Amino acid sequence: MQTIGIDIGGTKIAAGLVSEDGALTESKRVVTPAVPAEIEDAVVGLVTAIRELGDVRAVGVAAAGFINHRTGVVTGAPNISWRNEPLRDRLQDRLGLPVDLENDANAAGWAEFRFGAGRGCSDMVMLTMGTGVGGAVITDGVLNRGATGMGAELGHIRYERDGLLCGCGQRGCIEQYASGRALQRVAGELADAGGIGVGLAAARAAANGELSGAEISRLVLDGDRGANEAMRIVACALGEACGTYEAILDPDRFVIGGGVSALGEILLAPMREAFRTHRLAGQDDANELFHIAQLVNDAGVIGAGDLARGLEG
Amino acid sequence: MQTIGIDIGGTKIAAGLVSEDGALTESKRVVTPAVPAEIEDAVVGLVTAIRELGDVRAVGVAAAGFINHRTGVVTGAPNISWRNEPLRDRLQDRLGLPVDLENDANAAGWAEFRFGAGRGCSDMVMLTMGTGVGGAVITDGVLNRGATGMGAELGHIRYERDGLLCGCGQRGCIEQYASGRALQRVAGELADAGGIGVGLAAARAAANGELSGAEISRLVLDGDRGANEAMRIVACALGEACGTYEAILDPDRFVIGGGVSALGEILLAPMREAFRTHRLAGQDDANELFHIAQLVNDAGVIGAGDLARGLEG
Repeated sequence: MQTIGIDIGGTKIAAGLVSEDGALTESKRVVTPAVPAEIEDAVVGLVTAIRELGDVRAVGVAAAGFINHRTGVVTGAPNISWRNEPLRDRLQDRLGLPVDLENDANAAGWAEFRFGAGRGCSDMVMLTMGTGVGGAVITDGVLNRGATGMGAELGHIRYERDGLLCGCGQRGCIEQYASGRALQRVAGELADAGGIGVGLAAARAAANGELSGAEISRLVLDGDRGANEAMRIVACALGEACGTYEAILDPDRFVIGGGVSALGEILLAPMREAFRTHRLAGQDDANELFHIAQLVNDAGVIGAGDLARGLEG
Repeated sequence: MQTIGIDIGGTKIAAGLVSEDGALTESKRVVTPAVPAEIEDAVVGLVTAIRELGDVRAVGVAAAGFINHRTGVVTGAPNISWRNEPLRDRLQDRLGLPVDLENDANAAGWAEFRFGAGRGCSDMVMLTMGTGVGGAVITDGVLNRGATGMGAELGHIRYERDGLLCGCGQRGCIEQYASGRALQRVAGELADAGGIGVGLAAARAAANGELSGAEISRLVLDGDRGANEAMRIVACALGEACGTYEAILDPDRFVIGGGVSALGEILLAPMREAFRTHRLAGQDDANELFHIAQLVNDAGVIGAGDLARGLEG
């Protein structure tokens, strides 16, 4: 039996048919409208188009927002003007199909756990280095949503006491040290410092004063010393934070996603090294613990579709 | 149906009959022998004595050690000379009853969740301020043991980057700032500093140079300003750490146990206050989140007994 998976992001809505083994077909995407009512219309349009192509009995929706999974309400979202939106029930009423509504990071983590880099483990921590640091937690095979659906806000654990101010109101959150934005900040500091930062400074000047994460990644692959050092600093911070995740969750796999994860071992090697010196002594070797995410752009759609599977009538 | 619960600590072994509603009867305790083989004999002796008093079909054993729940092996222990001891299978063979083997902090946390301060919640974090900081995590009603059974080492999350050295090999673990030992250290610093620490200094001199946690607690209740400040400092550290637990786990209850938890609101009020300023902005009010453990000395026996319930033939 197939389900439809939908991934509502700040810029696009992706959709597709998801099979029981996690294969994605009939992918479609549209630009995310500005108004919540139009987003709903767009989702209904995508589902209507796709359900003609297969025997579909449930829809899974992943959305970039704070979601209470039990009630199906989007309480808020950083990039979409949702405010206590009962999205699940609205879509169910319009579609006449059962709908599962999930946070997008949770859906992506679930897809990796079931069909990607997390296959075969029992306790997985997914860390996504995007603009911020997001993630998902699987505990003994179960997606961990927390009591209020706010669980796995993995970017907001403490990295440094009285450290950098974070958008969440705290100081020292790992998000300020290991996100795409942190990478840009560190690269900028190196560009200012001269020395190994001269390549970054030149690239920054050519980019009209602001280096993107993609540009820094390109410089890393080109062998630029400053870009490599910036990446190492950020990777080490995330590796250190994994010591705290491990102490609480004891996962048998960390899966690293987000734009810079395409760097593979360049990212994982320093992470692993920093983790080794910032974890409980006497633990097993960390070589097999860290993996790069595999499903990348499709993870949200696949995870959402798979999470809806239990709802089939 | 009743089960037998056993709690093997560094100094004593406690045992009793545990009913389905968590009531404990026929409690017995013996001094913990020094040698693993004698500990096993002592457990067999306790079970043999107690099983004559009720219709018992399973035994739950909690032990102060690192335990792989799946294999039933104690891989090591801080205060007992176990080393990769297949304790569960040995006891099963000798008793002819199914045995469940669990870490003692997990068993105590489970007892609080089922019958104590955690009743009615879905996601609970138990924090025990003993010599160190221990704990247990319940996720959506399930005890979270982690992939290798090392989960919920809650004392070893980062509190301060490059902070105090910890026995686990890391620096800055919360255990060094919020344990009974941390309380003694802070009280000692205040005693050295004079001012509000004069009462602590006098008590320390009277105690031949070392203040116990119990003595500091007594001074707190007597209204000594230095002792109250030491307690506040330690409580705030633990409250701050709860911001990190919350970001990962999103619990609907924190249960605080250990010797100093008898101080109740004196401990909880500063914890709550520190937590409010060290958590994700926009979360619900924290008033109802923090509770003092209720089962105290019996929690290990009750939790172990209850965890064995599924094993009944």
